[in-house]
Amino acid sequence: MRVAAPGTTRIGWIGTGVMGRSMCGHLMAKGYKATIYSRTRDKAADLVAKGAEWAASPREVAEKSDVVFSIVGFPADVREVILGPTGALAGAKPETVIVDMTTSEPSLAREIDAAAKAKGLFSLDAPVSGGDIGARNAALSIMVGGETAVVEAIRPLFECMGKSIIHQGPIGSGQHTKMVNQILIAGNMVGVCEALMYAFKAGLDVERVLQTVGGGAAGSWSLNNLGPRILKGDYEPGFFVEHFIKDMGIALAEAKAMGLVVPGLALAHQLYLAVQAQGLGRKGTQSLILALEHISGFKR
Amino acid sequence: MRVAAPGTTRIGWIGTGVMGRSMCGHLMAKGYKATIYSRTRDKAADLVAKGAEWAASPREVAEKSDVVFSIVGFPADVREVILGPTGALAGAKPETVIVDMTTSEPSLAREIDAAAKAKGLFSLDAPVSGGDIGARNAALSIMVGGETAVVEAIRPLFECMGKSIIHQGPIGSGQHTKMVNQILIAGNMVGVCEALMYAFKAGLDVERVLQTVGGGAAGSWSLNNLGPRILKGDYEPGFFVEHFIKDMGIALAEAKAMGLVVPGLALAHQLYLAVQAQGLGRKGTQSLILALEHISGFKR
Repeated sequence: MRVAAPGTTRIGWIGTGVMGRSMCGHLMAKGYKATIYSRTRDKAADLVAKGAEWAASPREVAEKSDVVFSIVGFPADVREVILGPTGALAGAKPETVIVDMTTSEPSLAREIDAAAKAKGLFSLDAPVSGGDIGARNAALSIMVGGETAVVEAIRPLFECMGKSIIHQGPIGSGQHTKMVNQILIAGNMVGVCEALMYAFKAGLDVERVLQTVGGGAAGSWSLNNLGPRILKGDYEPGFFVEHFIKDMGIALAEAKAMGLVVPGLALAHQLYLAVQAQGLGRKGTQSLILALEHISGFKR
Repeated sequence: MRVAAPGTTRIGWIGTGVMGRSMCGHLMAKGYKATIYSRTRDKAADLVAKGAEWAASPREVAEKSDVVFSIVGFPADVREVILGPTGALAGAKPETVIVDMTTSEPSLAREIDAAAKAKGLFSLDAPVSGGDIGARNAALSIMVGGETAVVEAIRPLFECMGKSIIHQGPIGSGQHTKMVNQILIAGNMVGVCEALMYAFKAGLDVERVLQTVGGGAAGSWSLNNLGPRILKGDYEPGFFVEHFIKDMGIALAEAKAMGLVVPGLALAHQLYLAVQAQGLGRKGTQSLILALEHISGFKR
């Protein structure tokens, strides 16, 4: 496989939401020519203004590209834009590399890879963490699954968007690694929100408590970053509740398929459904404390 | 109140287990004269050899001390050594300060304080975190509840044992802060152990996964310190499962008394009972993964 390079490698981009827009923009800034498609055309206006070519469908994106990236919403969207009748696989020439960066199902990544191989194409799964800020600053952590030769050919492109690009194993391993990440966050967020609710209700000086416990065995990124936001009453999204629910749903289904019992993840999923039921689906994951307080009849 | 000082302040120590032995030893090393009692006399032999005076009961300890510390097992033990017929309160003169450093019930701390006040004494609750290593290195984090004047009088003694001594608020606040710490750890441990089980079962390179996710939004002290031990198959105790079960039981009871719903804590408590049911009560808290794997019928 040829290693990607500006001038020779034409990239395609499907999905120009908050994440995709920044990520594709970094590639263009490095000199890559891009053809783009998004369900909502408005969201692509910035990139078009910077010289990206608009395509009428994912298929048309693929027809004009050597490497096609997608970062969309749900696994059903991934299926449509890659495997659907107007999807990327329908338009791609042999040797094209399909790179799905959506947080999606490991099993779907394997299905896409099989379909790609049958057409003489390649594929990678490469979900990210780091959120919109990481995307904007080209500081994402990218978890990659697929064949080594393909990963190495695409690495220069990943390096335009992220600061940690780690090949986790065969196809699907990127998604599995992202699921591990989300299961960790799920358990921890339940602890963080229950603990802070307890601290408020017990009448403690919660800021002092955070300083006391944040540096020790109870410390975590979530506690140290979201705890202070909760203290300020800031529930704006770093990461959307509804996206987290999607991710946990995928992880639960994968765990079930593997025969694993994950009661903590199942509970976190249910509790976040309660957060959503309170109309907080577009708020940040720290909103869990509001649902717990609501259930407890406790008002700060 | 007079600020504690070697030569003038006689200290008493009740409970010379792994923690208490180190802590009392640090005070003696700074020149404090100590009278000690422990349920198992053998455990006090080291301190006696270093010059501590042995007493036949907590009451006798208190008779010979200006400040009496206790660090024992369960709240029932605290009740016995402080409030019981041969307990410290029975022997203490007015102005004595009773300092319970056991992780125990906030409500019991308030009960002890009321009983102490009725006799013209003072009390503090001052549980610690940092484990046996923190105790040995005089590097404990000490969470203190009680009146400011009493806390400041005792601070020089705390400084012999810990590196972070934080006054959290009125009596019981030290215990409440420790409960916040344990609720955080409970939720996080469920996430850590479910996530690592998932990673193993999915066939990932778990060491690489830890490196990938440990520094980001899923990172935590527990993941970064206990994850590698799980990888090595090391289940020796940093913190005993059976002590953690005790602490979670206290937190659940306090939460219930405050009317708080804490489903994540309740689940963690149940799962750790499963760990104990598998004969792992004297292993470290990372053993939770073994119980989850056992429930899932998954053998690594």
